Amino acid sequence: MALQSFVEVKPDSHFPIQNLPYGVFKLGPGLPARPGVAIGEYVLDLSEISKAGLFDGPILKNSDCFLQPNLNKFLAMGRPAWKEARATLQKLLSATEATLRDNENIRQKSLVPMGKVEMLLPMEIGDYTDFFSSMHHAKNCGTIFRGPQNPIPANWFHLPIAYHGRASSVLISGTDIVRPRGQGSPSGNSPPSFGPSQKLDFELEMAAVIGPGNELGKPIDVNEAADHIFGVVLMNDWSARDIQAWEYVPLGPFLGKSFGTTISPWIVTFDALQPFACDAPKQDPPPLPYLAEKISKNYDISLEVQIKPAGREDSCVVTRSNFKNLYWTLTQQLAHHTINGCNLRPGDLLGTGTISGPEPYSLGCLLELTWNGQKPLQLNGLTRKFLEDGDEVIFTGCCKGNSYNVGFGTCSGKIVPSPH
Amino acid sequence: MALQSFVEVKPDSHFPIQNLPYGVFKLGPGLPARPGVAIGEYVLDLSEISKAGLFDGPILKNSDCFLQPNLNKFLAMGRPAWKEARATLQKLLSATEATLRDNENIRQKSLVPMGKVEMLLPMEIGDYTDFFSSMHHAKNCGTIFRGPQNPIPANWFHLPIAYHGRASSVLISGTDIVRPRGQGSPSGNSPPSFGPSQKLDFELEMAAVIGPGNELGKPIDVNEAADHIFGVVLMNDWSARDIQAWEYVPLGPFLGKSFGTTISPWIVTFDALQPFACDAPKQDPPPLPYLAEKISKNYDISLEVQIKPAGREDSCVVTRSNFKNLYWTLTQQLAHHTINGCNLRPGDLLGTGTISGPEPYSLGCLLELTWNGQKPLQLNGLTRKFLEDGDEVIFTGCCKGNSYNVGFGTCSGKIVPSPH
Repeated sequence: MALQSFVEVKPDSHFPIQNLPYGVFKLGPGLPARPGVAIGEYVLDLSEISKAGLFDGPILKNSDCFLQPNLNKFLAMGRPAWKEARATLQKLLSATEATLRDNENIRQKSLVPMGKVEMLLPMEIGDYTDFFSSMHHAKNCGTIFRGPQNPIPANWFHLPIAYHGRASSVLISGTDIVRPRGQGSPSGNSPPSFGPSQKLDFELEMAAVIGPGNELGKPIDVNEAADHIFGVVLMNDWSARDIQAWEYVPLGPFLGKSFGTTISPWIVTFDALQPFACDAPKQDPPPLPYLAEKISKNYDISLEVQIKPAGREDSCVVTRSNFKNLYWTLTQQLAHHTINGCNLRPGDLLGTGTISGPEPYSLGCLLELTWNGQKPLQLNGLTRKFLEDGDEVIFTGCCKGNSYNVGFGTCSGKIVPSPH
Repeated sequence: MALQSFVEVKPDSHFPIQNLPYGVFKLGPGLPARPGVAIGEYVLDLSEISKAGLFDGPILKNSDCFLQPNLNKFLAMGRPAWKEARATLQKLLSATEATLRDNENIRQKSLVPMGKVEMLLPMEIGDYTDFFSSMHHAKNCGTIFRGPQNPIPANWFHLPIAYHGRASSVLISGTDIVRPRGQGSPSGNSPPSFGPSQKLDFELEMAAVIGPGNELGKPIDVNEAADHIFGVVLMNDWSARDIQAWEYVPLGPFLGKSFGTTISPWIVTFDALQPFACDAPKQDPPPLPYLAEKISKNYDISLEVQIKPAGREDSCVVTRSNFKNLYWTLTQQLAHHTINGCNLRPGDLLGTGTISGPEPYSLGCLLELTWNGQKPLQLNGLTRKFLEDGDEVIFTGCCKGNSYNVGFGTCSGKIVPSPH
């Protein structure tokens, strides 16, 4: 029988004792930010556990890493600290361990109902990078933007393509997204169009949160890259397709993306994901030696996108995909990122790119789902080419085991109108 | 007669009392980082001036902004604080003012010879953006990478094109640059090449350092953009042309740039640059209204690049250019960056892109100077297609007035070999 917690965890919960994802929360306006882990419908306040002296392992005993307003210090400590924290917390929360279960004072202080907390960005993000690692997405976008001849660029099968994203506008789930204004392609001899984006889109992604990282000039070996990945979040890389299409040649996406990128509040640790590892796709042509892994893993994470139009009670599922649709692994992405000597820092965010699968229902953005607006989606009687003001987009992700789930909760945002 | 300081300033100095650029320094390993301004061959330690109570204006009197290890807090305070600091420091340093001149105790503590300090990055950089604002550079690069038909992309004359750069690898002048390794284009049916870059280049740029910035979703008007620019530095956007050429389609430059970007230590304030303002080039087609400025300014800043090969005593000038060769202004760059609602934060860095002029000697990188290696440069008996290990690249920049200069000092870096 699977490990159980003394905290009630419903069978379909994303947050059993096998998960214990990390986040940062506050109890109200003006109150301090504190690290926590999710357990059932509660947040365990790690600052209280730390102050009570319950992190008693050799690495964490005298550390103030959980008395910080973000997780960066803990991220920098690396896998030995992460494993010790996980072991300590699984023991403290287990049904058979009395220390926390029977200490009403500490329990009251440290277990907070999720409904009472406001979740914050869990880390300070020095740099945010976005990859382009789904072959189906690359092929569909290439066909839409550049035509059906050779839609996938020649370099795509040799390296995990990526670009630098904007760190300042990475937002926590629940933050409204202001519809961006910008230039769109001119028609004929007219000047470029200008105004609120008419092709506002979501992109279904996940993102790795980086641990220790590397010094400038010292690449990370692909077979050691996993030690630098603390965990994974859901990510919505909101995209204005009309702005992007006009601006992106030759230096890549800029204002079509930088108005907002939303992440889920709970970082599911790499350790919690390991039971859901599966083989990565065979890569042909074989990658160059610096990208060749001894063991190449993907993860079986079911992903779903729902849209909830303004004024509607119900949301509508528009996509079902899976993390395992990615061609390049997280560890290959990380090794490639550093092969030139580029330094990663604790808290950096590495997005996977849009996770589209081969099936029509598994496409990870409206650009693909509606084929750039040519085939509108039906949403319970409404139609959508792209997002409209008031639409809320909700991602969920979950690893489904036999006796428990390891879930990511949700990552959501609502579109609000452009300023006048 | 121009304002004079009691500190000796040689006639060709970059740092007279009219300049007073800001930097951050330390006096040795393990000692604290402190803000300072350059005056002649000295650094004025602003933490000492602050502790002595000499910032006596209404904004700075009770502020601890100069007791910080970087300038971010001062940058966030905005132009009123910057003007007050400048007025206070010009008065304190002037030849006719006794307060500092005749107080040996404070003078000894606060005036440090430049030779005794180590300069540090002056601010924490949340995000670094790089523009592409020289028409000559855009035309030359487009011709080299994509051929002579329409070398400048259609969007170039309508918007200041930019991409997000890597903030973690922005370095202070004097830091060695490790030659990056990476993939290059395959020839024929071979796999891509891999190894140390064979086309390592410099890019002559300048960069704006951002002050207060804006909230997400609230663009900055182009006519108010100057209030968000604290000052300007020299910047070398080191580039590996072989890596860049293979990776950059379709998402832009990534590993070809992210191994290092060097900035000069002294931020010359926008206020000190104003006497050197000149008309910006006429823009045709006219920019869209959000980019149309009431007054459109460039700055007359002479720029020079020297290369000093390993073991040589002398360096060799390879480029003479000028900031006024830029087509898009700094204020247009800033307004464009925020038009979609993207938030800028204090300390953000906005590079101009390579500053090439129309003349053959004014090209801002080796890619252009040697036409992608086809026409090697002569350097006092040596030749260069691209940079070799041991080469030191030194930028200087200076505004030349009738009775004084406002200079930027130097921005330098030396190439060291790739790791094995």
